[in-house]
Amino acid sequence: MIEHDLVRELAEKNSSKIVMLVADGLGGLPLKPDGRTELETARTPNLDRLASRGTSGSSVPVLPGITPGSGPGHLGLFGYDPLEFRIGRGALEATGIGFELGPDDVAARGNFCTLDAAGLISDRRAGRIPSEESFQVVERLQAVKIPGVETFVRPVKEHRFVVVFRGKGLSGAVADTDPQATGVAPLTPQPLDAAAARTAEVAAEFVRQARGILADEPKANGMVLRGFAGRPALPSFDELYRLRAAAIAVYPMYKGLARLAGMTLVGEAKTLAEQIDTLAGCWNDYDFFFLHFKYTDSTGEDGAFDRKVERIEELDAAMPRIEALGPSVLIVTGDHSTPSKLQSHSWHPVPTLVVADTCRPDGLAAFSERDCLRGGLGIFPAKHLMLMAMAHAMRLGKYGA
Amino acid sequence: MIEHDLVRELAEKNSSKIVMLVADGLGGLPLKPDGRTELETARTPNLDRLASRGTSGSSVPVLPGITPGSGPGHLGLFGYDPLEFRIGRGALEATGIGFELGPDDVAARGNFCTLDAAGLISDRRAGRIPSEESFQVVERLQAVKIPGVETFVRPVKEHRFVVVFRGKGLSGAVADTDPQATGVAPLTPQPLDAAAARTAEVAAEFVRQARGILADEPKANGMVLRGFAGRPALPSFDELYRLRAAAIAVYPMYKGLARLAGMTLVGEAKTLAEQIDTLAGCWNDYDFFFLHFKYTDSTGEDGAFDRKVERIEELDAAMPRIEALGPSVLIVTGDHSTPSKLQSHSWHPVPTLVVADTCRPDGLAAFSERDCLRGGLGIFPAKHLMLMAMAHAMRLGKYGA
Repeated sequence: MIEHDLVRELAEKNSSKIVMLVADGLGGLPLKPDGRTELETARTPNLDRLASRGTSGSSVPVLPGITPGSGPGHLGLFGYDPLEFRIGRGALEATGIGFELGPDDVAARGNFCTLDAAGLISDRRAGRIPSEESFQVVERLQAVKIPGVETFVRPVKEHRFVVVFRGKGLSGAVADTDPQATGVAPLTPQPLDAAAARTAEVAAEFVRQARGILADEPKANGMVLRGFAGRPALPSFDELYRLRAAAIAVYPMYKGLARLAGMTLVGEAKTLAEQIDTLAGCWNDYDFFFLHFKYTDSTGEDGAFDRKVERIEELDAAMPRIEALGPSVLIVTGDHSTPSKLQSHSWHPVPTLVVADTCRPDGLAAFSERDCLRGGLGIFPAKHLMLMAMAHAMRLGKYGA
Repeated sequence: MIEHDLVRELAEKNSSKIVMLVADGLGGLPLKPDGRTELETARTPNLDRLASRGTSGSSVPVLPGITPGSGPGHLGLFGYDPLEFRIGRGALEATGIGFELGPDDVAARGNFCTLDAAGLISDRRAGRIPSEESFQVVERLQAVKIPGVETFVRPVKEHRFVVVFRGKGLSGAVADTDPQATGVAPLTPQPLDAAAARTAEVAAEFVRQARGILADEPKANGMVLRGFAGRPALPSFDELYRLRAAAIAVYPMYKGLARLAGMTLVGEAKTLAEQIDTLAGCWNDYDFFFLHFKYTDSTGEDGAFDRKVERIEELDAAMPRIEALGPSVLIVTGDHSTPSKLQSHSWHPVPTLVVADTCRPDGLAAFSERDCLRGGLGIFPAKHLMLMAMAHAMRLGKYGA
């Protein structure tokens, strides 16, 4: 990324503080054509006041029309082009359950399945066995031993689990073993290039031993593996921006994403109030603070328009405490939109607000999708947000003489 | 194009219908500084109503300040970066007269010229001989026979014609033979790289035989060839978007451009009403419909402001019939602007409207250049329009987990 070359060249240290508050899935849609979005419906006196002080805009997470998952959504906000930096499925799944991937790790998603006497798949999800049952099956797999490789098996939910192989020279270039059909056997792990031959053998050996261990399981007696992937090579916030970055998140996925960017996880907060306590507590130790608020997304995913409105109002009510800390730059944004109407992530641009003493007023008096369209940040790629954060923090020197 | 990689990865099939109505040269300019554009002048109650339901914006065909021809203009709308995918002049000219280029074809534009006794050009346009006369000269050239190559000669207008060479291993990398001056001989076709040596020989042999055949012509006794080009390699709509695409156009150029994108030409409509009849008739057989309306461009080229206004009103009046078919996504746009004031294509952004149930309202109540500037699509590259069409049709899966 040319932006990274620039930032490396221009980044300077100072005593400024940057707070990036990510309201997951913030953007929305009206339920009726002439209605209001969740954000437009919510009473947000604090965000509106901040919007009149700052500069607003609409952030495009990846490209117009592209709906991002949490991974690409956050990569963009952190200044990594989500089309250039990709987190493989296995690595994201491991990250999502709080498994800290190392540089020698290759992770894959596993699904338990049911095999018949001939070894053919009769149920691709092992009857969606309950999580408690699955956890016990995973426990049995700790017995697998492969010479020269450390193996970690972790439960996710129901029939899903994560396996991580740790060893020198492993590679994520291994094909999925899921035939995506019943009545056929799981595929044998195949290397996608010569360098992955050993990893494919390791995976095959894992499956072989697992078959033996699970032979007496009534449902989860087989498995398919998908999305083999190593830890993505992201330059760290420290190296890139010269920022000591703290992440204050509740859920493992967002902690994991922050860790991949080299942020330090701070605190054990469970609520927004506790997150702000944590923020206050570590204020002097870091330069950049990533605060993640999950519930604007989860209520959207539930299709719960009114509850999403309430969560936005909860967020609004918390703003004065964050402001009271005196951040040099305060950003409020989302990693993508999650309209209650669609009950899913969407491609719609995300309302975004940057507040700093160096903001040029754009004449807005409220924070909403409709207002942000007329804001001074325009409709901009999310990957450029960090450049603006750094600029308003007076942490970027002049480019050229 | 990274966009194509993404679309190939994310495209899904469903039963949605996308209509893209291209009003050629739609954008305009006021005749006086404080006046209104053609679109702002026209009474467009239907488009205005659609604008209040949908999301509007200003499409930039190629880059700011760049005036596109019909080729690049349409490539952008179809989602092909017009800077990456280029249609050579010969190929576009052949396309424009309805000649269906095959993969082994190389086309060139020809101009008849007048040669004096010494073989030097005395008139570069052969006295602009009338089309009927030129058609007869072209007919005589059907007698050319080149071993191993099929030759097609087709009239265009006045002194202009198209020649197509069909044969394995031919290449478009041949230099123009037009010296752009009188008093000198036409140039000999020269290969621009080693692979084009044979094609240059073929072209030279064509010219040699033509000189013999046309020796007795009073005006058109010579020729220059320009813009050698093969068929551009565009991934098809089917391969790229998994869309069965139909083109409903009246003029050969637009039919040809649609065919290059792998669309199926449907119907023999001559009027907009007939085009909509055709649309209704093939509604169940396709997923995507490209409707081309020529007259907003031709009236602009004529400098006929009032007639362009009338044509826009004609288009507006046709909207309810298109809406009645119930498209999931309805797009109204243009391939470029053609302001009557300039009597030519221009670089100005093109008013664009996307209507779907998943549109986020942008507070507009009318469809015009001025309104589109404040629309939710912003000022955007035309090549991203298809991504938005696909998104609103719910035909793009999530990017990353």
